[in-house]
Amino acid sequence: MSAVLEQLVTKIAQRARQASLLLATAPTAQKNEALNELAGLIDRSHPELLAANAQDLADAESNGLTKAQIDRLTLDPKRLAQLSESVRQVAALPDPVGALLDETTRPNGLRIRKVRVPIGVIGIIYEARPNVTIDCAILCLKSGNASILRGGKEIFNTNTALAALVTAALAHAKLPADAVQLIPTTDRAALNTLLKLDQYIHCIIPRGGESLIRFVASNSTIPVIKHYTGVCFVYVDAAADIAMAEKILINAKTQRVTVCNTAEQLLVHKSVADKALPVLARALIAKNVQLRCDAISAAILAHEKIATTPATDADYKAEFLDYIIAVRVVDSLETAIATINRDSSAHSETIVTADEAAARKFQASVDSSAVFWNASTRFNDGFEFGFGAEIGISTDRLHARGPMGLPELCSYKYLIDGTGQIRS
Amino acid sequence: MSAVLEQLVTKIAQRARQASLLLATAPTAQKNEALNELAGLIDRSHPELLAANAQDLADAESNGLTKAQIDRLTLDPKRLAQLSESVRQVAALPDPVGALLDETTRPNGLRIRKVRVPIGVIGIIYEARPNVTIDCAILCLKSGNASILRGGKEIFNTNTALAALVTAALAHAKLPADAVQLIPTTDRAALNTLLKLDQYIHCIIPRGGESLIRFVASNSTIPVIKHYTGVCFVYVDAAADIAMAEKILINAKTQRVTVCNTAEQLLVHKSVADKALPVLARALIAKNVQLRCDAISAAILAHEKIATTPATDADYKAEFLDYIIAVRVVDSLETAIATINRDSSAHSETIVTADEAAARKFQASVDSSAVFWNASTRFNDGFEFGFGAEIGISTDRLHARGPMGLPELCSYKYLIDGTGQIRS
Repeated sequence: MSAVLEQLVTKIAQRARQASLLLATAPTAQKNEALNELAGLIDRSHPELLAANAQDLADAESNGLTKAQIDRLTLDPKRLAQLSESVRQVAALPDPVGALLDETTRPNGLRIRKVRVPIGVIGIIYEARPNVTIDCAILCLKSGNASILRGGKEIFNTNTALAALVTAALAHAKLPADAVQLIPTTDRAALNTLLKLDQYIHCIIPRGGESLIRFVASNSTIPVIKHYTGVCFVYVDAAADIAMAEKILINAKTQRVTVCNTAEQLLVHKSVADKALPVLARALIAKNVQLRCDAISAAILAHEKIATTPATDADYKAEFLDYIIAVRVVDSLETAIATINRDSSAHSETIVTADEAAARKFQASVDSSAVFWNASTRFNDGFEFGFGAEIGISTDRLHARGPMGLPELCSYKYLIDGTGQIRS
Repeated sequence: MSAVLEQLVTKIAQRARQASLLLATAPTAQKNEALNELAGLIDRSHPELLAANAQDLADAESNGLTKAQIDRLTLDPKRLAQLSESVRQVAALPDPVGALLDETTRPNGLRIRKVRVPIGVIGIIYEARPNVTIDCAILCLKSGNASILRGGKEIFNTNTALAALVTAALAHAKLPADAVQLIPTTDRAALNTLLKLDQYIHCIIPRGGESLIRFVASNSTIPVIKHYTGVCFVYVDAAADIAMAEKILINAKTQRVTVCNTAEQLLVHKSVADKALPVLARALIAKNVQLRCDAISAAILAHEKIATTPATDADYKAEFLDYIIAVRVVDSLETAIATINRDSSAHSETIVTADEAAARKFQASVDSSAVFWNASTRFNDGFEFGFGAEIGISTDRLHARGPMGLPELCSYKYLIDGTGQIRS
């Protein structure tokens, strides 16, 4: 059984590699034809897709999934319309492949061009969101990469129905059927095999919770681009406009509490703490946010008759993903920077200040993928950055850092033209 | 013992992380001051360095190392002069840190700048070449990265002496002493600990043979940039200038046989095989290269009374790193491309042809890091590409592909300036 499974997964990877070589030189129009056909197929296949999804939903209920989990895997006509719309949007984006990134001519006459090319074969390991199946398939296709999709068992039927549409769309555009393949089993052993096929697969992108990502990173011999969630900081500087700080903090903390660029930590400069903390605390409490405070901030707020919860050491590095925030008073900009570089996850941080020199020092010294000045951390996002699409927000420092759009799904190669040059 | 070792290595990594935060904003002049001081220290420390090296050489002989291995770890005044010269050259290169890579202003007024920053902490795992100690230390330092060096036990004394000079140079420039640290033990357990410290170390670059790189890639939870060696192809097209093909082939195969961009495989288009193969074979044989031939090329050469060795299947994918080449006749450009994409290591390939359309098709379709037209594969090299320095030639597709210079030792971050923007 295990040998059969290993053979099956290996064959999928080999076929993906072959498809990737064809896809790498596929014209933009041909890739877009497949994408536009897929959008139409999704629009015309609501009954089949909803029937497959209903099977998964029936299993989900009998398997005792939580309400939030069930919501995540549910499709309905509105979500399907959003899905086909997102496919059309990716079709409309510029093709990243073939861009000339650099060009030089050497003293010996060699002309060297660095051009953007697809990575090759990308494996996507994810959980129970059916939209990930389509999102990843279309972003990989547009960027000329073959993809192997391994979704959670909770959406197996939905994924199978979606993958059938992708296959039909590829055939319509005369692109190789193996350009997008779904692993046709939910056996965990298939994943273990997949993660070792570095001969055929060039990149693994896990999408899901931290434990999934850690499992993949620890077991893969293929390079992994990780998308961990974030412990993001709002720092209210000595020179902060307190009304602006309130607006940014409330947005960063409460606009969507369960996502990676949500603020989890608040630092306030001691010189404005007396004035700013009561304003910020009242605004947070009005949004049902619990404050976990250090001794100084608790004392200031107690003086204003605002009750708080004492923070533990763990709270200062916590990713709550909930209506909770940890609060500390710092004695300087330098302490704020050092605290963030020690306790944050290097994802997204913001300084609220009217002092440009403080802002520039903060941006230069804070070692995070996005460092904001007078704006919400929630803007660290591919769409907000104008990328038009995003496969995730990388928490790695190699290859891609922060939002990953189509160019970040590409590699490059060098084309060198000579006239018979040899090395001496 | 093992717990003590683990603690020691963890402390080194923690201190490197702290140093990396300081180094990230160190001015160019300060980094160059350390480099220039180091060059001078190497020049003034020949007696100490040669004495340390003599200890390693004595051990090497009693441990039965081969002549080639001993040569690799030997220092002499000439090699030390080259070493200090390479340090001065890196000091003279432009600082990659801080470059503005992209800039946009969004409709909501957010100004987004993408700027180049150091990766952070880089671990270098290598074997018995003392120049790697200095090369890696200076390239990491110039690019603002802290480095942790773990060299082979065969050069432990030499490395300790070299590292002492680096420490002195850092102190001279008032840079953190922990910016460059040598693992002060050759215990293999230290390496296993190091490869799991993804909390503090952001990138591992192994330099050495394939088995070392495979070990590191399989055991590291830190992203690894791999520098495998190459199975590189020369393809002599139907429209090749045969004299040029001879010159390029001889250079690609024999200019330095033990390196990664050396040709190991020859493909000849059937329409020129009768004319080209005897010329190429005689030139190779004159350079003492053994030809391992497929049936067609063997028959053509036998007809010209040139004796060859039959190739095995393994020979067609072999990296000989020796005076051996595998030879095949192909029936078309397309077959040459498919053969290369199947059997090469995607490192460096060249087409010799006067037909520009054939060259462009070859360059577009061959999926290798460097694809040459009418030039030797030996040019796939950071110095030859004009990078001024190189830490290796990446065989990965993520982050860096092909020669890695100073910019490839960097990541980037986004700096976003707002005026109170929040996300809706």
